[in-house]
Amino acid sequence: MTAFIRSGDRVADQLRPVRITRGFTVHAEGSVLIEFGQTRVLCTASVEEKVPPHKKGSGEGWVTAEYGMLPRATHTRSSREAAKGKQTGRTQEIQRLIGRSMRAVFDLKALGERTIHLDCDVLQADGGTRTAAITGAFVAAQDAVATLLAAGKITASPIRGPVAAISVGIVQGTPLLDLEYIEDSACDTDMNVVMTGAGHFVEVQGTAEGAAFSRAEMNALLGLAEKGIAELVVLQQKALSAPLPTNP
Amino acid sequence: MTAFIRSGDRVADQLRPVRITRGFTVHAEGSVLIEFGQTRVLCTASVEEKVPPHKKGSGEGWVTAEYGMLPRATHTRSSREAAKGKQTGRTQEIQRLIGRSMRAVFDLKALGERTIHLDCDVLQADGGTRTAAITGAFVAAQDAVATLLAAGKITASPIRGPVAAISVGIVQGTPLLDLEYIEDSACDTDMNVVMTGAGHFVEVQGTAEGAAFSRAEMNALLGLAEKGIAELVVLQQKALSAPLPTNP
Amino acid sequence: MTAFIRSGDRVADQLRPVRITRGFTVHAEGSVLIEFGQTRVLCTASVEEKVPPHKKGSGEGWVTAEYGMLPRATHTRSSREAAKGKQTGRTQEIQRLIGRSMRAVFDLKALGERTIHLDCDVLQADGGTRTAAITGAFVAAQDAVATLLAAGKITASPIRGPVAAISVGIVQGTPLLDLEYIEDSACDTDMNVVMTGAGHFVEVQGTAEGAAFSRAEMNALLGLAEKGIAELVVLQQKALSAPLPTNP
Amino acid sequence: MTAFIRSGDRVADQLRPVRITRGFTVHAEGSVLIEFGQTRVLCTASVEEKVPPHKKGSGEGWVTAEYGMLPRATHTRSSREAAKGKQTGRTQEIQRLIGRSMRAVFDLKALGERTIHLDCDVLQADGGTRTAAITGAFVAAQDAVATLLAAGKITASPIRGPVAAISVGIVQGTPLLDLEYIEDSACDTDMNVVMTGAGHFVEVQGTAEGAAFSRAEMNALLGLAEKGIAELVVLQQKALSAPLPTNP
Amino acid sequence: MTAFIRSGDRVADQLRPVRITRGFTVHAEGSVLIEFGQTRVLCTASVEEKVPPHKKGSGEGWVTAEYGMLPRATHTRSSREAAKGKQTGRTQEIQRLIGRSMRAVFDLKALGERTIHLDCDVLQADGGTRTAAITGAFVAAQDAVATLLAAGKITASPIRGPVAAISVGIVQGTPLLDLEYIEDSACDTDMNVVMTGAGHFVEVQGTAEGAAFSRAEMNALLGLAEKGIAELVVLQQKALSAPLPTNP
Amino acid sequence: MTAFIRSGDRVADQLRPVRITRGFTVHAEGSVLIEFGQTRVLCTASVEEKVPPHKKGSGEGWVTAEYGMLPRATHTRSSREAAKGKQTGRTQEIQRLIGRSMRAVFDLKALGERTIHLDCDVLQADGGTRTAAITGAFVAAQDAVATLLAAGKITASPIRGPVAAISVGIVQGTPLLDLEYIEDSACDTDMNVVMTGAGHFVEVQGTAEGAAFSRAEMNALLGLAEKGIAELVVLQQKALSAPLPTNP
Repeated sequence: MTAFIRSGDRVADQLRPVRITRGFTVHAEGSVLIEFGQTRVLCTASVEEKVPPHKKGSGEGWVTAEYGMLPRATHTRSSREAAKGKQTGRTQEIQRLIGRSMRAVFDLKALGERTIHLDCDVLQADGGTRTAAITGAFVAAQDAVATLLAAGKITASPIRGPVAAISVGIVQGTPLLDLEYIEDSACDTDMNVVMTGAGHFVEVQGTAEGAAFSRAEMNALLGLAEKGIAELVVLQQKALSAPLPTNP
Repeated sequence: MTAFIRSGDRVADQLRPVRITRGFTVHAEGSVLIEFGQTRVLCTASVEEKVPPHKKGSGEGWVTAEYGMLPRATHTRSSREAAKGKQTGRTQEIQRLIGRSMRAVFDLKALGERTIHLDCDVLQADGGTRTAAITGAFVAAQDAVATLLAAGKITASPIRGPVAAISVGIVQGTPLLDLEYIEDSACDTDMNVVMTGAGHFVEVQGTAEGAAFSRAEMNALLGLAEKGIAELVVLQQKALSAPLPTNP
Repeated sequence: MTAFIRSGDRVADQLRPVRITRGFTVHAEGSVLIEFGQTRVLCTASVEEKVPPHKKGSGEGWVTAEYGMLPRATHTRSSREAAKGKQTGRTQEIQRLIGRSMRAVFDLKALGERTIHLDCDVLQADGGTRTAAITGAFVAAQDAVATLLAAGKITASPIRGPVAAISVGIVQGTPLLDLEYIEDSACDTDMNVVMTGAGHFVEVQGTAEGAAFSRAEMNALLGLAEKGIAELVVLQQKALSAPLPTNP
Repeated sequence: MTAFIRSGDRVADQLRPVRITRGFTVHAEGSVLIEFGQTRVLCTASVEEKVPPHKKGSGEGWVTAEYGMLPRATHTRSSREAAKGKQTGRTQEIQRLIGRSMRAVFDLKALGERTIHLDCDVLQADGGTRTAAITGAFVAAQDAVATLLAAGKITASPIRGPVAAISVGIVQGTPLLDLEYIEDSACDTDMNVVMTGAGHFVEVQGTAEGAAFSRAEMNALLGLAEKGIAELVVLQQKALSAPLPTNP
Repeated sequence: MTAFIRSGDRVADQLRPVRITRGFTVHAEGSVLIEFGQTRVLCTASVEEKVPPHKKGSGEGWVTAEYGMLPRATHTRSSREAAKGKQTGRTQEIQRLIGRSMRAVFDLKALGERTIHLDCDVLQADGGTRTAAITGAFVAAQDAVATLLAAGKITASPIRGPVAAISVGIVQGTPLLDLEYIEDSACDTDMNVVMTGAGHFVEVQGTAEGAAFSRAEMNALLGLAEKGIAELVVLQQKALSAPLPTNP
Repeated sequence: MTAFIRSGDRVADQLRPVRITRGFTVHAEGSVLIEFGQTRVLCTASVEEKVPPHKKGSGEGWVTAEYGMLPRATHTRSSREAAKGKQTGRTQEIQRLIGRSMRAVFDLKALGERTIHLDCDVLQADGGTRTAAITGAFVAAQDAVATLLAAGKITASPIRGPVAAISVGIVQGTPLLDLEYIEDSACDTDMNVVMTGAGHFVEVQGTAEGAAFSRAEMNALLGLAEKGIAELVVLQQKALSAPLPTNP
């Protein structure tokens, strides 16, 4: 079988160009624009000095996420969730996934009784918005933690290590890393993988859109994801090691 | 490390007792009570001779699912979604999962322009409600298809083969099959796996509740799931091979 | 005029076979499956150690009810209220009726500052779901009170006496007791009556669906209801006098 | 037992002063302000030349009602349903009752495929708002039918006869007709009765707020209601026999 | 250009007949029916001895407004907002405008920690409902303040001076004062102006429905508004100087 | 009185630096990032080849707007409207204003039966978001119209001329043009003005936040607005005269 040809001569196990811009907006404690090719997600981290009811008095903090997509982030305009008066099931699934992924690397006790809200808003969509959101939200969360450390509100970082995410899938029989929209639409199997910097799994969500997939295919996909996430973690660290740009 | 001791002397790779009662209620085209130990889910299949807007005129049918839990199906009463005026994110995630799993084995063209609604309502919960729902919904769907065949509305079954689901997880270091509630609450990793009768994956949803999990642990979990689902498929076929009981 | 012929040779003033199964599910403090012929309602009673705002600090408890119907409890599937995001006017009317009926026999002061939630969920409908719900909810409430007494939380039962309910109606000129669905659809007048064990009225709700009804017809209907409810109260007591079955 | 003393020396079986003002507002096909003492309800009837989906193509019309209460119609301000985003269960119960009561005297076939909307809005409440609403809505419906007849859209009235409603109740052991708010709050039993001009029952809704009531008490209440409704029907006819006032 | 001919020989800078009826309903602390020609709005002022969260502990009170329209206040019936489950954008805009206008003349500190709710409900609409609402709400607020003074809850009025409102617009080239519905529908420019008794602006909301308007036209409209509002303030004072009528 | 000192040595009648970036995102027919100093609004124009029901069959098109603010566009995080399930009154007011402003310069007949949706989403807020949104939406609308002309769907532009908007206000007695957040919070009077390229008014919305304002102050504010809008119209034309940048 001939392998699927990707746009821009990208090879099967290659990420799209990733750009991480810190300090993208001025008010949030962390504000990151992350781009996976044409996919662009604005991830802000906001610190709130209180916790939701289920954590009140626990001595622990909370980390939570919300996800949204601007109506014309997509090829055709989708209706605005605020106007319809409810979030779709897809939106809720994604924001629950982002929240769990962030909490997987947070020591909530060390955070203290405060909340970090991660808002991931898709400005432009071309596949992989949830994995870009997780990868960018981690960077925004780091910047928010830095403000807490700088303000002396905490003395050690509650973040135990990096977390990042990537999509993988099988298109016309070929396992591919980091699907863009056109590949995502055509794929038989689509899997989103979230891993720690240590290479362990936080979340694996695989769906056979067409034919069910074999154990061997699953193994190929997990291998691709491991490679991609290792690269993303390096990019996160590189972005975080630079000084925070000052907004013009 | 000592392995986790399960209730009722169940071994790590053993399913709970599974009971499948067809014809549990009288009105639905398919009506199945499925029990995984103390977990009991009523799955009904209703045939509607029309399709949702996105399938109108396509010549294809649709298969969709809804999921609910009675307020006191659980240890402590949870509030009624109808009274609160919205379904939780968890409910939406589950019903989307059931729907995708059913469509994975349906030939929508062969179904014709009609809809099969699968309603999965949890009467009693003790872990694994979504996997019991998928496994039971498949049996209800078969019975609904049988009424269509018997009525001459279709001449061949649109169902391509069985589908079933099971949960697996790691509790205190031990990979376990078919978690009950107390195990689910204590587990580090929880994974729901949906597979076809041919042993291929339809859905894999794994979450690290505590520590992230390694590739080796993932492999152990997938192996357990394959074993459990193979057994469930046999039980489904056995239930379907009996004559449909008549409701007293 | 020839009297209306009922299914199963039932005579005009005869109840359908009534079955009351206590301990139907395991988690609730009271859990009763009640069957009036083919109508089956699961009634659970849940004790919550707090009261709604309007009772806070009053020294009194509260008893309240919610009612639901599984989507395919009926001949044709009805849409799920949780999915539509609101309860119908019919549902609200019924659950308000059940709540008032239960409170009519409760001494809220003797209950203490706690709430008993009665959840009445129709698994299968064939007419008379609200009257079955009231009759079954009373039994579930008794079982819940027994757990409070056994736990020493209260020293005397706050229940002053039995309450039960039945429907009556006029079909083709014949007054009938305990209408099943086909009779309910055809009736000119439909009345739901709730009475205490002492034979006094708690609620009377009569509606002329077709022609308005005369005072004489009203009297005939009330007489039928008195007879039916007296029988139901005996059946409730008989069910309650047996030991609580243990769920398998 | 000493009988309860009513305000304004009203005797037990006496209605409050009833005033019926037709043409209260200018736009509606029927517009009636009805007053039962201090209770004032504005009832408008609006004709719409189409029917709801369940009547489309049936050759029949539809008659429906909505009920509302201005926030400060009551002693203390209640919150606005439009602002809260939903109607209470009480509101829904009442508007369903009004609608059924009106349909009881309408020949929907003779109405033709059009809808009469009855809007009953309480400007000031002092008990008995739903019975005033029904009694006034009938007058508004008559005026709306008159405009249809005058316009030649129908050639005979679809109204088969009058319908009116009154509340009765037992206060401190005394059966009373037409309860005002202070009596309603204190009553043991509260019953709303809807009857036709011929003295037949359309709806009977009795509730024991305190002690359950006996068959003898029920008979006393029904007798009072019959008397009151006969008087209301005379007042309706008298109001309708006058020429429609022109709005200043 | 020939000037637009108004109904009833009204000249361009002339108000419609204005009637202000205090004590229109009995329960509210202030209750005013205000009529601008055929437009009739019931404005009630309700005093509540608590404040919304954002004012708690501030030592200041709050003044807020809600606006509604009965479904058949208009030429054709509009759907009931409570039934639809949400207020339109228009309703929200109007009630925010009324609230701001009232707060413009209130010293919230002098009011003390209590809330005055102004409910403005349109019984009949013929243009200018929001300006009638503001003008009437001021009178109702005065009556509510009088009850607080009479009860000794405050010792000086928190109202700093009158506020009133009027609409102006350009119809077929002619600037007109106080548009009725038919003029409003035909106008090119529509402006609502709220002013204090001292002739200063509180709100100006002008909209070009058709052609944009020039600075000169704007000046003409503001001049008309100043004239109309001066007259309304006189009418408010005259109404308030009479003794409060007692409701029959 | 000493005049208020503005940040960055801005004089009273000076706009903040305005940047207009066309082609900011790739999918929309028009996509403009507009910046008024630190305020940044993404305005997209989407063409849909159908019209809302009230325009169906009219031969006319429709232009409509929606407005949103990312949760952390502001100094402190505000809750997400989609999560709360409704848009605030403020949001609705603003999007209605943007829609009316755009329609003021559109010939809907010339547009043909299609809709242009303008989505204005605030990425970062520092005062004046609604006026930036209107000014940017006009540029996005022009680009969308250009795609329709290029595709031959229309042969002449339906846009009659430019429209732009600016805020003005009185801060500590000084009338100022283009308020930033800190000025807006402190101002006594706040006015938003929308004008055409010809210098005529489309909308004027002035509110006295503190003291009411005089006719002289109003005149000063309108003068400032005229100056600012004339400058904005030049900037719009300059931006539109450049070639559309291609997204990297």
